[in-house]
Amino acid sequence: MKKGILLFIGLFISVIAFSQTKQLTIEDAVFGRWYNLKTESLSGVEWRNNQSYTFIEKWSRIVQADAKTNKKDTLVKLEDLNKVLEASSLPKMRYIGSYEWYSNDAISFYDKAYHVVYNITTSKVEFYNTTDDKAENFNFCKENSSVAYTVENNLYIADKSDALFITKDEDKGIVNGNPYTHRQEFGIDQGVFWSPKGSFMAFYRKDETMVADYPLVDVDTRIASLKNTKYPMAGETSEQVTLGVYNVQEGETVFMKTKKDDHYLARISWDPSEKFVYIAELNRGQNHMKLNKYDVNSGEFIQTLFEEKHPKYVEPEHDMIFMKTKSNQFLWFSERDGFNHLYLYNTSGKVMKQVTKGNWVVTEFLGFDAKEKNVFIEATKESPIERHIYKVNIKSGKMLQLTKGKGTHSAKFNPSYSYFVDTYSSTTVPGKVNIVDANGKQVNNLVNAANPMTEYKMGEMNIGTLKAADGKTDLYYRMIKPVDFDPNKKYPVVVYVYGGPHAQLVSDTWLGGTGLWDFYMAQKGYIMFTLDNRGSANRGLEFENVIHRQCGQNEMLDQMKGVEYLKSLPYVDQDRIGVDGWSYGGFMTTSLMVNYPETFKVGAAGGPVIDWKYYEVMYGERYMDTPQENPEGYKKTSLLGQADKLKGRLLIIHGTVDGTVVWQNSLSFVKECVSKGVQLDYFVYPGHEHNVRGRDRVHLMQKITQYFDDFLK
Amino acid sequence: MKKGILLFIGLFISVIAFSQTKQLTIEDAVFGRWYNLKTESLSGVEWRNNQSYTFIEKWSRIVQADAKTNKKDTLVKLEDLNKVLEASSLPKMRYIGSYEWYSNDAISFYDKAYHVVYNITTSKVEFYNTTDDKAENFNFCKENSSVAYTVENNLYIADKSDALFITKDEDKGIVNGNPYTHRQEFGIDQGVFWSPKGSFMAFYRKDETMVADYPLVDVDTRIASLKNTKYPMAGETSEQVTLGVYNVQEGETVFMKTKKDDHYLARISWDPSEKFVYIAELNRGQNHMKLNKYDVNSGEFIQTLFEEKHPKYVEPEHDMIFMKTKSNQFLWFSERDGFNHLYLYNTSGKVMKQVTKGNWVVTEFLGFDAKEKNVFIEATKESPIERHIYKVNIKSGKMLQLTKGKGTHSAKFNPSYSYFVDTYSSTTVPGKVNIVDANGKQVNNLVNAANPMTEYKMGEMNIGTLKAADGKTDLYYRMIKPVDFDPNKKYPVVVYVYGGPHAQLVSDTWLGGTGLWDFYMAQKGYIMFTLDNRGSANRGLEFENVIHRQCGQNEMLDQMKGVEYLKSLPYVDQDRIGVDGWSYGGFMTTSLMVNYPETFKVGAAGGPVIDWKYYEVMYGERYMDTPQENPEGYKKTSLLGQADKLKGRLLIIHGTVDGTVVWQNSLSFVKECVSKGVQLDYFVYPGHEHNVRGRDRVHLMQKITQYFDDFLK
Repeated sequence: MKKGILLFIGLFISVIAFSQTKQLTIEDAVFGRWYNLKTESLSGVEWRNNQSYTFIEKWSRIVQADAKTNKKDTLVKLEDLNKVLEASSLPKMRYIGSYEWYSNDAISFYDKAYHVVYNITTSKVEFYNTTDDKAENFNFCKENSSVAYTVENNLYIADKSDALFITKDEDKGIVNGNPYTHRQEFGIDQGVFWSPKGSFMAFYRKDETMVADYPLVDVDTRIASLKNTKYPMAGETSEQVTLGVYNVQEGETVFMKTKKDDHYLARISWDPSEKFVYIAELNRGQNHMKLNKYDVNSGEFIQTLFEEKHPKYVEPEHDMIFMKTKSNQFLWFSERDGFNHLYLYNTSGKVMKQVTKGNWVVTEFLGFDAKEKNVFIEATKESPIERHIYKVNIKSGKMLQLTKGKGTHSAKFNPSYSYFVDTYSSTTVPGKVNIVDANGKQVNNLVNAANPMTEYKMGEMNIGTLKAADGKTDLYYRMIKPVDFDPNKKYPVVVYVYGGPHAQLVSDTWLGGTGLWDFYMAQKGYIMFTLDNRGSANRGLEFENVIHRQCGQNEMLDQMKGVEYLKSLPYVDQDRIGVDGWSYGGFMTTSLMVNYPETFKVGAAGGPVIDWKYYEVMYGERYMDTPQENPEGYKKTSLLGQADKLKGRLLIIHGTVDGTVVWQNSLSFVKECVSKGVQLDYFVYPGHEHNVRGRDRVHLMQKITQYFDDFLK
Repeated sequence: MKKGILLFIGLFISVIAFSQTKQLTIEDAVFGRWYNLKTESLSGVEWRNNQSYTFIEKWSRIVQADAKTNKKDTLVKLEDLNKVLEASSLPKMRYIGSYEWYSNDAISFYDKAYHVVYNITTSKVEFYNTTDDKAENFNFCKENSSVAYTVENNLYIADKSDALFITKDEDKGIVNGNPYTHRQEFGIDQGVFWSPKGSFMAFYRKDETMVADYPLVDVDTRIASLKNTKYPMAGETSEQVTLGVYNVQEGETVFMKTKKDDHYLARISWDPSEKFVYIAELNRGQNHMKLNKYDVNSGEFIQTLFEEKHPKYVEPEHDMIFMKTKSNQFLWFSERDGFNHLYLYNTSGKVMKQVTKGNWVVTEFLGFDAKEKNVFIEATKESPIERHIYKVNIKSGKMLQLTKGKGTHSAKFNPSYSYFVDTYSSTTVPGKVNIVDANGKQVNNLVNAANPMTEYKMGEMNIGTLKAADGKTDLYYRMIKPVDFDPNKKYPVVVYVYGGPHAQLVSDTWLGGTGLWDFYMAQKGYIMFTLDNRGSANRGLEFENVIHRQCGQNEMLDQMKGVEYLKSLPYVDQDRIGVDGWSYGGFMTTSLMVNYPETFKVGAAGGPVIDWKYYEVMYGERYMDTPQENPEGYKKTSLLGQADKLKGRLLIIHGTVDGTVVWQNSLSFVKECVSKGVQLDYFVYPGHEHNVRGRDRVHLMQKITQYFDDFLK
């Protein structure tokens, strides 16, 4: 509906145009957003209780504010906290980074190898858990005051008095309680799952002994040394994962009797009774999910609640959300009607209601109200590039939009769901933080950020839509024009592309979803263009799954629609169109360079997938099936057979210890180009993984900038 | 003397100037010399007897010619040979590549896993030795008609009837009979040494189990796989080598009782009696050699014949050359007077005579005449950039120059040393092959090659001298001017550099010691310049050993003398000077780029040593000592600490499985540049070792050409 209006008012929905004097430096372009050109906001926001929330000021104070009156109060000062920590023989903190409310009077936080609960009223340490200097993957359970953690491949629990091992596997190929299970697909971000009352802890046990070693080389040692990693490539032998349930009282672990075939334990949910655990189990083909119930005491399989199938793929990414008032009912996310929506189920596996519905997606479940009559969600209902917060009545399905300003909102609710902190920005709003009540009424404005770019020369940014190659789907693009734009001139264009699933580059946020590098390039005289093709995120299942068994094919057709639009603009120099991207975007960049050699003069591709057979099982087989099942798809999408089609200048960049898109990808392509007599350029970042992070990122962006300056400008 | 004249007649000693129309292609530039633009010559020349020599025609015929009459006769045709081989159930040959004369009527050659002796008179296979499909390092002994060979790390002998193993080491870290011992330093090119009558076979046994593994990665396998190599880095644990002597009759091996400390068994020589073996043993510090005598039956050390020491290094590269008429006398190569000369010794270790002497070097010992009154040598006496053949009277030292034409000669003598095949070329003579007698009289002219470049545009080539940075030493340079040279224009220059020991780039040969790529670049408008700095080969010990403990330092000073000269030329564009080199030349290129950032605008460095600590023990410690012994030298020459001095455009290129200059070198430099925020360019040749060979070399040279075209032209 609003989308209709949007299209009606024309192509351009928003504009940032500044006309100041300062030039961005390459450092500003890379880091400015987080430092000198940061937009004001609140960090470390937590609700202490229904009335008061807290946040961190200058990394050294926890400040409380009253939701209604906005009255402020400093609760914790770093210097005071450190005195108390020192007195308790605990290490001092350099800054206050993150914390949680343990109770109304106590915060909890990690302090190196310790988990500390600190009472702000008494200014004393209530208790602490002692872990290990090498501990990682901390997971604190408030109900039993214990923290689970891993050291290397084993899992431990530290309670208030002691630490004990839960697993003791000597073979490093057996990895326990680690979030890096199934390579963190299916939204996996933890390796242990405490039961609701803290009586049990479920944990992933990953056996990757049978997975091939992939050799990574460390050149920082006196003599270069080997750091093998386990990397299961598409179609090859994969890991085996099981779920252990540790009984805290009895000190024993029972493994759930999941099947032995290749499959994924995608999501783990606890029954409120703590008697059962549910596993969303997905076959290796990833097109058939079963939500299975297991008895945690015996490990026995009890029943399949329900199944989900799809000819292409099913991708469970959310746990069951049990209601408190009805412990046999839960919400379940499903894309079964084509969009990600919430369904109310009972534990017999019967679907009771589709709670949300429409040609838009629920991007986040935020909680129930106190009586569990309504749910709070974040969704794309207004526009795919906006996010708003809604209250949805479970029974009637009636939706109330709680956030007002056009743009992208996120919410942090108080415990009783009567208020939330609404953080938002849009292409015209640098940033606002408000307190909003459960009916959408703004109670207070906390932050009204100034535009940090007022002194800088900034190119004009437009967001608009155009039709996909299917002739019907709207795609969103973002274009940034050079500073001092003159419509009578001809400008070079850099198309920045990602194009793969699970990402959306164009959004109605401050800077439109991009960073300052685009504006830096616009200062140098480039038009910067980005289009979210079909295959990208938050537009529904069909929009995404056009990529199935043919990654890159439809995505390229859509990108060429973007290019067609660019070429229609009189100020675009058709002979100077470049393309740039990383990871899937590196794959897209290389694919576009070889498939449209007459269009793209220059490309810069980072960490590119070159042949999906070199990519891993989990992500790779979801979208491409196995090389054995889909030989023609692998062949068509592989860049190895297409090296001889390359004509423009292509710079490929790779981190030498990339464990995500392994180096073999780009090295194979370089080898293929060499053997075909095709010139290309190459650069590596020694010691860097899949992304060039930290200070070296400035070098990377300068390298890419330089490449366009050398050959496209 | 002749050198005096040379300098007197001025800077330019020779000129090639063509003014034709054809352009070299990049393929011509790389491969032309060996294919379409090859200079006519004779291949596979062997003396059958004193009167007749043979050669291979079109890879399919062995042709005989009479030294005196030049009468020709086809002895062997491939098709006939193959019929005989087939009848003997031996594999057919695709072409005739190489052969030797086994007797006056039989040739011997390798035919896959077989060594075959074929009688040309009877047209029958006399006998053959059967080795193994995986056999390598063949070494045939005429005296006992057996062939030694290796399969993986073990050594075997095949006689006429059978094959048997000499070693049976299961640990792959023990390598027997392999020429790749001491990494082939000291001129080592074989791993087994048959005794004069074939009763014994000495062989290297290399224990490298204690040497660090260096990880090389093969990206051609389905999943990249590891190919470790043993790489002892300077200052680190090195290999241990011993010498076994296998008694053919008794079938037993005795190991010579060499000391257990780190040292080199640099050269192995047999006593004519077969009772003793001599080992030129060199300490790990490489400044103290002992020529030690061992009893082959007991392995006992008998005596040290003599020792050679030098404050910098001693580098034995030649075996003892025993006389036939006096079995207790032998010749020995030594640089002890500053130039490589021959000394006559007796087996008591007493030096009887310095046979050759002067400020020039003996580059090859060719043999004795029948009565052993005279020796034949190849030497640099006329000029460091020429080679001539001389007869030297042992008693009087009187020298007779046997070769006449100015330029570079090589000789292949007949068994009685009454004739030799003289192959030569110079900057003005594309190639000649003559039969010359032992008194220097030309008996026949076999080949008088036409200039293969007559149709091509070729830049004018000059060879000249200038003074080294020491102000006194003459250095030779070669300069090629652009085609259609206009002295009123300003041209860019590419300095091609190697600069390290054991190489000499400028020579009085056809094309002046370079390939056609320099001429290709000259066609594109570049001046190509190369200078053999101090440190390079064939100019004597002091000329070379200025590099000791400070590789690159004096070499750079000399190269800058070349640049000074270039800058003095009105047609050189001082703002467009580039530098290019590989290996030691890659080290020099990178060193010049960082040390003279105002001089060199563009550099292309292939397989560069970046820090000598990453180079191997044998070569590295000879010139640099160990990092522990010479920390300041390593620091000064290391490019890792100098990355921030780089200003120009530098392209570094490396083969990904380089086992000579390991990849760690350039990757470390890239990493250092990244961390210092310094931009550079990089390229890799996946699957290539220290040099990019084969067809891919075209790609490499195009890459380098392109780089200069992009940034220097």
